[in-house]
Amino acid sequence: MSKQAVDVLFVHGNVFTMGGSGVGAIEDGAIAIRGSEIVAVGRTDELLANYEAPEVIDTSPFAILPGLIDCHVHTPEALLRGVAQDVPDYMERAMAPFSRALTPELWLAGTRLNVIEGLKAGTTTTMDFITPYPGWAEFYDSLGVRAQLTPKINGLAPDAMSTAKGGLYAFDNAKGRRMINAALAFADRWQDEADGRITVMMGPQAPDMLSPELLREIKDHADRRGLRIHMHVAQGDREIRQMEMRYGTRSIPFLEDLGYLDEHLLAVHLTEATDEEVRTLVRHGASMAVCSGCIGLLDGIVPPAALFRSEGGYVGLGTDSASSNNCINLFNEMKLTAVLNKVKAKRPDIIPAWQALRMATIEGAHAIGLGDRIGSLEPGKQADLILIDLQELNLSPVVHAPVRNLVPNLVYSASGHEVDSVMVAGRFLMRGREILTANERGIRVDAQAASEEVMRRVLADPAHRSLSLLDAMKADDL
Amino acid sequence: MSKQAVDVLFVHGNVFTMGGSGVGAIEDGAIAIRGSEIVAVGRTDELLANYEAPEVIDTSPFAILPGLIDCHVHTPEALLRGVAQDVPDYMERAMAPFSRALTPELWLAGTRLNVIEGLKAGTTTTMDFITPYPGWAEFYDSLGVRAQLTPKINGLAPDAMSTAKGGLYAFDNAKGRRMINAALAFADRWQDEADGRITVMMGPQAPDMLSPELLREIKDHADRRGLRIHMHVAQGDREIRQMEMRYGTRSIPFLEDLGYLDEHLLAVHLTEATDEEVRTLVRHGASMAVCSGCIGLLDGIVPPAALFRSEGGYVGLGTDSASSNNCINLFNEMKLTAVLNKVKAKRPDIIPAWQALRMATIEGAHAIGLGDRIGSLEPGKQADLILIDLQELNLSPVVHAPVRNLVPNLVYSASGHEVDSVMVAGRFLMRGREILTANERGIRVDAQAASEEVMRRVLADPAHRSLSLLDAMKADDL
Repeated sequence: MSKQAVDVLFVHGNVFTMGGSGVGAIEDGAIAIRGSEIVAVGRTDELLANYEAPEVIDTSPFAILPGLIDCHVHTPEALLRGVAQDVPDYMERAMAPFSRALTPELWLAGTRLNVIEGLKAGTTTTMDFITPYPGWAEFYDSLGVRAQLTPKINGLAPDAMSTAKGGLYAFDNAKGRRMINAALAFADRWQDEADGRITVMMGPQAPDMLSPELLREIKDHADRRGLRIHMHVAQGDREIRQMEMRYGTRSIPFLEDLGYLDEHLLAVHLTEATDEEVRTLVRHGASMAVCSGCIGLLDGIVPPAALFRSEGGYVGLGTDSASSNNCINLFNEMKLTAVLNKVKAKRPDIIPAWQALRMATIEGAHAIGLGDRIGSLEPGKQADLILIDLQELNLSPVVHAPVRNLVPNLVYSASGHEVDSVMVAGRFLMRGREILTANERGIRVDAQAASEEVMRRVLADPAHRSLSLLDAMKADDL
Repeated sequence: MSKQAVDVLFVHGNVFTMGGSGVGAIEDGAIAIRGSEIVAVGRTDELLANYEAPEVIDTSPFAILPGLIDCHVHTPEALLRGVAQDVPDYMERAMAPFSRALTPELWLAGTRLNVIEGLKAGTTTTMDFITPYPGWAEFYDSLGVRAQLTPKINGLAPDAMSTAKGGLYAFDNAKGRRMINAALAFADRWQDEADGRITVMMGPQAPDMLSPELLREIKDHADRRGLRIHMHVAQGDREIRQMEMRYGTRSIPFLEDLGYLDEHLLAVHLTEATDEEVRTLVRHGASMAVCSGCIGLLDGIVPPAALFRSEGGYVGLGTDSASSNNCINLFNEMKLTAVLNKVKAKRPDIIPAWQALRMATIEGAHAIGLGDRIGSLEPGKQADLILIDLQELNLSPVVHAPVRNLVPNLVYSASGHEVDSVMVAGRFLMRGREILTANERGIRVDAQAASEEVMRRVLADPAHRSLSLLDAMKADDL
């Protein structure tokens, strides 16, 4: 019998398919790829007997994993990396002048830095949540990665938060509707474009930032078009206070009444969600994005990801932003999610390594509604995968028996720089740590220049004189 | 006036001297080095006006920091990386058969892997706590790094822990005395050898593992020779139970009575120390080594490092072991120490980045009694320093005003692979990520072979059948 022709055949790898309920480990594993799709996964001898390819790649020094999924990030903020750390008043006394100075024409430079930083650490799918700007989706398209893009919809009046003085934020429905319309236009243009690599979600920013009327309109639009909802939920006591003042209830019961809690909701953060509210979300089929690094650094809080998952919900991992979390790196998120939840529970067996790896791959894929396309290495799925160099010292030695040590080391020891190659939809975007579809140096230099423009503006803004970190500068602590 | 001749002049770097009470930031900074010592540190224009050198190195793309100090590690266990993760019964049902199989003739392979892994992540000084074996100190000497070596002294009868069945461990003073004598002979041979790069501490393993008689003898020897004490203290409820059963008191009051609490004590872990006990330690001048990664993963505990430091004590960071913590990387420890303490305190301003950086450098140096030689970049100190590539995407952009973003990014975003070059005592040990004084590939291959020998022995040991992780293997979770 003749062999089936495929385009690429990876052989002799340490494959983790993330299929089934565990990690799907295959020693001496192989993967056959045709076009953008995985055709077969199995033992090397099996696949070599059945497939032939012009490109047969020996991956014996590598672990092969599905590409990692960043379930929540605001990419332009990469330009503000590290300017607002370790302060109790992050938004008002640390970020505010930087956020104002980071105007839309500079955002692309931040998005590009963020996305290639993630790519070099194995991220192949990015859930980017921002106000759309020209070139945003085009960059993802040209780079060749996968993205689920969420145009932000905010229905607050300008300066509503700073003028509220402890009272209710003022709504501006006209502004909110303009943002809804922009989001719908964006979805019309980009949903399932770029050979299906780009998908779109609706992004009401938070339950306290839009009137119930607009929240209902957004949900109606989303349901009619089959779009999912990506939303900050129960993020901080500030939000909960607004909800209680305005509606006499908390965010999650409010959203339940409004019909938001279903399998199309990706709820981000949930820092304030009670155990009962977590169970409510899971019962309705909603998913969660946990940003362990960001929330740990900004709030000293460990969100209820372990409970959400143990109740049967899907939890994906998010980096949130380089301005809060400093690195755009899902290896960092896997490790922090595991360690922080062990500390929260005071138990070492909470979020074992394999669960963190599933959150970064297949469970994250389900959480964002792409579980049928990505997240595991199985026939019929898209060929989004990463090769991780097991010859890096921090992944040595490699042990297969009596217990395999690769998964714990990938979660607790790898830092992302061990990612040697990245493939998305059957196409190599990085090989031997060289990005093939963008100019890394040019992107870094442009980001540096854009950041310098931001800083010039901040220095010209008198508000910068009340930055709390100026004291740290004077004290020689920065 | 003619310029002073030095051997190496680093110019145009982002220097963090860690002198003073902060980070000692010098923009466009320079460092002059003669022999093993730092001669001058200052602005580039100042140093170029006063010094000349055959080697003038442009370090404009780099941050320059003191070499990092690993204040507690058991190096041979690098061969057991990742074989015992996520289990509640780490010692008995996960590590025991591996520990037995890791016999002394294999230890050097583990030590070498551990130390060059650390070196590539910027560690220049290692506090290694193990039973001495032939070749141990010689390896540190030949590699050119700095080490403070602690021969382990344990006075328990063989199998005392496994046969105690909840009762008291049996002591074996004769065995303990043999280990004391071996430690003293080691100190006689190596204290201040290798041009002062190797120093020795006395290492009574823990307060419950030696009779009071031997503990007193060790302290007498140490005081007479001017050696410091490196000891696990208040590590786990197991130890506290032994102390209460045997002496009717807890570890720290017991050690206070015994005269152990002074400025020569480095107390490791302190997971069970009460706030009052922490204050007692600090009042006596003792220092602390905190192993945030290890203790977080194994116990889900955040040791009282923030309190120890805020009370005025010195706290250094330790990696502990690759078998518990998976990576030998002080960037990992800096980040985890900061994040975990924020979560413990529920406050983002606890352990800001600069404090974590000080723990990894100057405060760690003081904690191990080498604060006069290393830990900061100041004239008269040893030239132990690292160059960190700020062109790595996760450290971009670089911002100097209105607030500098380098220190937060070095702590929260760097992962160690950004370390480009390492110098110890004025000698480059790594440049452009190539280790110059050892064969990295050979060390990795030898460690792999040694680990395979360990695993063959474990598979031949029937005890491996009760490893709790065998269930995880069957469940496809590893």
